[in-house]
Amino acid sequence: MIYLDNSATTKPNPEVLKSFQQVSQSFFANPSSIHQLGGETEKLLIKSKQQAADLLQVHEDEIVFTSGGTEGNNLAIKGIAFEHQGRGKHIITSEIEHPSVYEACKSLESLGFDITYLPVNHNGVVSVEDVERAIRKDTILISIMHVNNELGSIQPIQEIGKVAKKHPKLFFHVDYVQGLGKLPIMLHNSGIDLCTMSGHKIHGLKGTGILYLRRGVKLFPLFHGGEQERKIRSGTENLAGAVSFVKALRLIMIRESSERTNLFQLHQYLRSELDMIDGIEINTPKESAPHIMNFSIPGLKPEVMIHTLGKQGIFISTKSACSSKDLDESRIIKACGFKEARSKSALRVSLTYDNTLEEINEFLSKLKEALKQLKDVME
Amino acid sequence: MIYLDNSATTKPNPEVLKSFQQVSQSFFANPSSIHQLGGETEKLLIKSKQQAADLLQVHEDEIVFTSGGTEGNNLAIKGIAFEHQGRGKHIITSEIEHPSVYEACKSLESLGFDITYLPVNHNGVVSVEDVERAIRKDTILISIMHVNNELGSIQPIQEIGKVAKKHPKLFFHVDYVQGLGKLPIMLHNSGIDLCTMSGHKIHGLKGTGILYLRRGVKLFPLFHGGEQERKIRSGTENLAGAVSFVKALRLIMIRESSERTNLFQLHQYLRSELDMIDGIEINTPKESAPHIMNFSIPGLKPEVMIHTLGKQGIFISTKSACSSKDLDESRIIKACGFKEARSKSALRVSLTYDNTLEEINEFLSKLKEALKQLKDVME
Repeated sequence: MIYLDNSATTKPNPEVLKSFQQVSQSFFANPSSIHQLGGETEKLLIKSKQQAADLLQVHEDEIVFTSGGTEGNNLAIKGIAFEHQGRGKHIITSEIEHPSVYEACKSLESLGFDITYLPVNHNGVVSVEDVERAIRKDTILISIMHVNNELGSIQPIQEIGKVAKKHPKLFFHVDYVQGLGKLPIMLHNSGIDLCTMSGHKIHGLKGTGILYLRRGVKLFPLFHGGEQERKIRSGTENLAGAVSFVKALRLIMIRESSERTNLFQLHQYLRSELDMIDGIEINTPKESAPHIMNFSIPGLKPEVMIHTLGKQGIFISTKSACSSKDLDESRIIKACGFKEARSKSALRVSLTYDNTLEEINEFLSKLKEALKQLKDVME
Repeated sequence: MIYLDNSATTKPNPEVLKSFQQVSQSFFANPSSIHQLGGETEKLLIKSKQQAADLLQVHEDEIVFTSGGTEGNNLAIKGIAFEHQGRGKHIITSEIEHPSVYEACKSLESLGFDITYLPVNHNGVVSVEDVERAIRKDTILISIMHVNNELGSIQPIQEIGKVAKKHPKLFFHVDYVQGLGKLPIMLHNSGIDLCTMSGHKIHGLKGTGILYLRRGVKLFPLFHGGEQERKIRSGTENLAGAVSFVKALRLIMIRESSERTNLFQLHQYLRSELDMIDGIEINTPKESAPHIMNFSIPGLKPEVMIHTLGKQGIFISTKSACSSKDLDESRIIKACGFKEARSKSALRVSLTYDNTLEEINEFLSKLKEALKQLKDVME
């Protein structure tokens, strides 16, 4: 099997799964229970939060464990919107956000919020000037992703952070789900107030994640209740999930620092090889994250190629998994200004550190073969 | 170790944990991915939903997998409130709800909703007549729990369901977290529109749960995004968690039907023995769930007893884990009309099918010993 759909989800690292199992078995008590068993699990919870904070170079009390990226994005956006709507109801985001940001914003429109969806250029990048120009007196939130999940384009997060800092009354949220473990960003003192991370994109488990919430930022919680996670996210803590997330984070950060160059090289090789294939048009810009390669085969339905390769044990995707059931065109590719023939025929290869040159060559060879066979269908 | 804090959380069944691990390893693909691996995981998701529906005797499309009880309760209450606020902003609940219902309602007050908190009688039971009388033209939701988590008192859910049915414009939500696997309730055609269940209370895993959502009931989702779970709860499905929940549900239902009589007998034995101990006053009413026994030792700080027993490897609790960090009096015991000396000294023993007569006898013996030793402290 050659798995090249790592932006949809990754295979859990066996060590991460082992952590989950050990904690589930040996630290099963409720951290809120005041007896000694509860005390032990509470200690482990605090320790894992401290470890996450150290890895991310933030404060321990800025870590909120969540059930994943969609929760993190919704908690950030709706949490700021509901809490600060008295000050204003304007939110700035982009046309290429992940559905969990884009649809969360759409849902707020139905509740009377005013959303500005910023365009992107041909490379799938938002302009810092556009962000700055869009800020109004009633703007309470800017939500811009780091790495786009379909294209791999990188948004100017650090620059937008500087702009946000000049407007201390608004908050800046970053969807960091696709960048985590591939391209480091600085959180502390960056202008970023909220930042979403997900476990299952970094060889962790589904149902795990972190929302970074800068000290002093107030949210309206989505889950009220027993006041866990400093009242931000009530509910009995999924301690095994939290520990497993931190394990996955540590392991991916080790690989990030030692294997990122390899990944970049693999990515560049893939680009240059795809570039030489007749009928293929590459959508991912040259300056991009090292793990996503989006390309179109105009005239070919992408699901046909996916199934052809899938039968041979090679797994790639169309668009993002979270939008892939709509067989329409890609909202993201369209936003870059590409024509329908291209936005309706996009395919995505997404890599991880486990992928090898041999796998890429095998993929390329099968892709070329399939293209030859499918030429009849296309003509 | 004698673990008698099963209403806070239960020890995961090894078979449940094994299911989680197997699915995480072998079915890691994203169910939304359109390639063959995604198709396999999607099939397993549908199968596990069908199995849950069969066990609960409801339709497959009425099952929503969640991250647990707090999410289920918040999704039900806020989801109905936000979606149907145009029709009315009045909600009926009780004074003895779990914090995840009680605080969710409180949070809605801050958004302009009007909440009626119904009182309970001395046995911790809401009156059906009170519910009926509280219904107004602008009532959109009744949220009443099944088994109270501190007392074990059982609410007249079926009767309230009949009342709710007479008012087709309002919705009826039941927090079934403590009753599941101990006392069956009928969901289909019961007047119940929404019903919350949690995995870690039935020897399943933390971070797992189900919200039953009757066909046709519309909610404002807490998580918008990729439209998973029929748009009710977006986010990459925690398939391993879902499968593990269904496994836990099947196993607990088998024990429920074959071992509930034993549990009732153990519970009765515990009551009669506690009843004979000088200085102990039992708070749990005679008609109660078979697993919760709440009693007070007026004059004794409950945390002293918990630590004394804990040192000897016996684990019981004060109040619910979700409220146990507030060292104030119990809101629930107070609502039953008990005086402060009693509501501030409440202890809870909560059983599961694994607990034995020997364990109960050991607990009783250590409790008596501790009482004798602590008498000095109390006088």
